[in-house]
Amino acid sequence: MRITVLSDGGWGTALAMNQVSNGHDVTIWGPFPDYLDEMRRTRRNPRFLAGVELPAGLRFEADMGKAVEGRDMLILATPTQYLRGVLAKLAPVFDRERHVLVDVAKGIEIDSWLRISEMVESVLGETRYVVLSGPSHAEEVSRRVPTAVVAASADLALAELVQQSFINDNFRVYTGTDVVGVELGGALKNVMAIAAGIIDGMKLGDNPKAALMTRGISEMGRLGELLGGKAQTFSGLSGIGDLIVTCTSGHSRNRHVGEELGRGKKLPEILASMGMVVAEGVTTAKGAHALARRVGAETPIIDEIYAVLHEGRNVPDAIRNLMSRSAKPE
Amino acid sequence: MRITVLSDGGWGTALAMNQVSNGHDVTIWGPFPDYLDEMRRTRRNPRFLAGVELPAGLRFEADMGKAVEGRDMLILATPTQYLRGVLAKLAPVFDRERHVLVDVAKGIEIDSWLRISEMVESVLGETRYVVLSGPSHAEEVSRRVPTAVVAASADLALAELVQQSFINDNFRVYTGTDVVGVELGGALKNVMAIAAGIIDGMKLGDNPKAALMTRGISEMGRLGELLGGKAQTFSGLSGIGDLIVTCTSGHSRNRHVGEELGRGKKLPEILASMGMVVAEGVTTAKGAHALARRVGAETPIIDEIYAVLHEGRNVPDAIRNLMSRSAKPE
Repeated sequence: MRITVLSDGGWGTALAMNQVSNGHDVTIWGPFPDYLDEMRRTRRNPRFLAGVELPAGLRFEADMGKAVEGRDMLILATPTQYLRGVLAKLAPVFDRERHVLVDVAKGIEIDSWLRISEMVESVLGETRYVVLSGPSHAEEVSRRVPTAVVAASADLALAELVQQSFINDNFRVYTGTDVVGVELGGALKNVMAIAAGIIDGMKLGDNPKAALMTRGISEMGRLGELLGGKAQTFSGLSGIGDLIVTCTSGHSRNRHVGEELGRGKKLPEILASMGMVVAEGVTTAKGAHALARRVGAETPIIDEIYAVLHEGRNVPDAIRNLMSRSAKPE
Repeated sequence: MRITVLSDGGWGTALAMNQVSNGHDVTIWGPFPDYLDEMRRTRRNPRFLAGVELPAGLRFEADMGKAVEGRDMLILATPTQYLRGVLAKLAPVFDRERHVLVDVAKGIEIDSWLRISEMVESVLGETRYVVLSGPSHAEEVSRRVPTAVVAASADLALAELVQQSFINDNFRVYTGTDVVGVELGGALKNVMAIAAGIIDGMKLGDNPKAALMTRGISEMGRLGELLGGKAQTFSGLSGIGDLIVTCTSGHSRNRHVGEELGRGKKLPEILASMGMVVAEGVTTAKGAHALARRVGAETPIIDEIYAVLHEGRNVPDAIRNLMSRSAKPE
């Protein structure tokens, strides 16, 4: 297949490498021509996937028209809050009959509170859309560490086409049809990872962290169902699986934000120290909080993390509020 | 309340400390009078809960009759494979009207493949029985680290009585009625922790570990339902919660066994190095494998871990078998 990845982040690059190794013709498009030149010249992506050598076959193209013309598959790998801008650039050259869109970004658009598929539809209309999600740190996928994800589409045949395109011995792809559940799992777990990171940063212990993660997955499922997802999706790779890896791995940026908050640092300082690397959970907390109010869901963890990130609530107070909820039937 | 803990392990001791701090009158019974003397004299439990000072109010009694006479609650904290022997000693002095039994051991009896409540019934007949389980490392509970568990009984009022007895600001107790599901969650997660430990020991990565844990919780739920548990119990503290803490914490003995296997050590050597500390998952793997065959459940993780532990299967082969399962709808 002829595949273009939009854009040049770590996850998009790792998936581009996977697709090159599967024998596909792969191009990375990015918003900064100079950085694409650097990647082409050095065969590295030092900002977003340091220390990994990019395969010789991987190509780079700064012109959106040239990047997508004649391609079969476009992988949407832009951070959520920049994706609408990329979609607007894509729109004039988008071919709805030809292009399969594979979203791998995980978030909720700020202010509109749209999931990625809704945002795509609002810009491009009806598309051949698949979401690919699961416990999959880019660094590990780039090193061919065994990874399992799910590809979900309203059209199961399309999910299977994406499965066949990505699958190999080290990258297992399962299929599903619950786009809403998969998108929400991928977005909401980043909020839970910030909460888990706070527990790590405060050195509260393994017992409270496990209790919080358990309540987190239950909260995600409850909110997710009210927003139209299927409960069982949140028990799968894109739900629990991604929650586990994001809450426990040293690679996770969202867990890192929480850890620094738990150590007493302030959010602007933390985000500044991360440079151009995006922690989706910070904005997703706003979106999740707004969506929960819209559907009347009880979301104590999301509410406390939202208050910490966006209303200046003191971190120890937030944790105390979470820990001291009254004991009742589970 | 007047409470006796049977016997002197780390978890029983930590819970005894919790109950002393709640104002109860607490005695620890143990099978070795000399060791009880040492605990009484040093106010320590060096073998099973090193470094923790035991409260002055905690008492020790080597005589079973004296230990349980006039007590309201007996906490069953003996490793599963020794519990039948302790129950046999208890039987002549057991008062079924008076004594509430709270099981905190997590396993399946070898050869009979009975859950703890079934084993208790086979020795003592019908009892006032509650199981207490959840993500709760003894070391952390002894340091008053915030912990949340579930107390389940066929008689909800009895579960609530146990809840009220154990609960405090740092030890939250939720109630439930699914004894089968809570017992199976606590037992089966130890098998999954051995599998997760192998992935750690082989340094395979965070992505495959999260994928395995996701499949592990699904496998536990599938088997647990066929054995009479409720699916949602496996999504709670005694299922996912305990799975998470046991698969990720440095405290976990079962994860430790897996980690050493993953590094290439042999089981007898690993168990010898652990001394008297019991890793329940090693025998539970046998029981889970036997029970799965009985009800016709598909349990690929349990089967591979069983084969590694008890049939000499090579660890890398077992992991390869698990990783290479064909991709299908999730």
